[in-house]
Amino acid sequence: MSDVQTVSSQDLGDKLDLNPAQIRKDLAYFGEFGRKGVGYNVSYLIEKIRQILKLDRTIYVALVGTGNLGRALANYNTYLKENLKIVAAFDADPAKAGTVINNLTVQPMNELAATVKARNISIGIITVPAAEAQKVADQFVAAGIRGILNFAPTVLKTPHGVRTHHADFTAELLSLAYYMEQDIEAEGSGMNR
Amino acid sequence: MSDVQTVSSQDLGDKLDLNPAQIRKDLAYFGEFGRKGVGYNVSYLIEKIRQILKLDRTIYVALVGTGNLGRALANYNTYLKENLKIVAAFDADPAKAGTVINNLTVQPMNELAATVKARNISIGIITVPAAEAQKVADQFVAAGIRGILNFAPTVLKTPHGVRTHHADFTAELLSLAYYMEQDIEAEGSGMNR
Repeated sequence: MSDVQTVSSQDLGDKLDLNPAQIRKDLAYFGEFGRKGVGYNVSYLIEKIRQILKLDRTIYVALVGTGNLGRALANYNTYLKENLKIVAAFDADPAKAGTVINNLTVQPMNELAATVKARNISIGIITVPAAEAQKVADQFVAAGIRGILNFAPTVLKTPHGVRTHHADFTAELLSLAYYMEQDIEAEGSGMNR
Repeated sequence: MSDVQTVSSQDLGDKLDLNPAQIRKDLAYFGEFGRKGVGYNVSYLIEKIRQILKLDRTIYVALVGTGNLGRALANYNTYLKENLKIVAAFDADPAKAGTVINNLTVQPMNELAATVKARNISIGIITVPAAEAQKVADQFVAAGIRGILNFAPTVLKTPHGVRTHHADFTAELLSLAYYMEQDIEAEGSGMNR
């Protein structure tokens, strides 16, 4: 936390590389948070944005699969805010149980259900090979998880009531490639933006 | 490649967990690709989708940063199709130069500019710590890259003409948490979907 009390849409725009007018417009959609010529009170703005994003309570996350990607995400935990935290990591490889990644002690899979309940975990992250992903999803669902973030390159079947998002690296690259081509076409036609 | 010649919107819907009517509607937006009662010719559909997504030529990708995330992405290369390929990996740590990850030999940073030109690389992926990311982006830009996919938790400044996307793990988790809360509210109000 820094000591800044108020922030202008111009400051926010500079930091986020966004149009200040768009920031004012977007925030105004949810109510009058700022004061003209003064800006936004930082702590009030944070509280309001948390409410808008439904983040005004803490969400606990579990991770299954501590290969390269799982380790990267566990290390990324440091950047997550206090209301969103990876609190447990699991791996099917017995040799990995007991190892520590960024303060998380890797647990064996047979502890998943009890840990999800005991630690009130509502989101499960899957970073296992594609062939293992559905089995892990089933275990998360049986444990009572409400959301799954799947990094395995496969489509998961989950029941109604379990929100499942696919973090798709290929889609990220394809999307970038698509907009690059659009930029190049726009430049070619003099429609540079 | 499998031997399937045609595919119905129903088959596609089952595989992708999407509504077949929506698939028909989305594809019809770009023209008449399918035949009623027969379905879509698979190779023609693939060709058309490539054109729509502007992927009818090969795009070469370079990666900087071979920590856990960089290694995970390099391994993921196997899942990328032939028209989107990571062909070079770099690391600032001299000790990593010469090591091999999934057929990619890690190169030192001073080879980046020449390799980007020689291999016709148009996308750069950044998986270095936040403090190093801008420097890497600057090197990519100087080498003539057209798109950057940034996994470092920091906002990059890049010039006009270089499309920059941020692969944001926190945003993925926040988005999932948001929709989970919406689902729970909808269930509470009997508006289950």
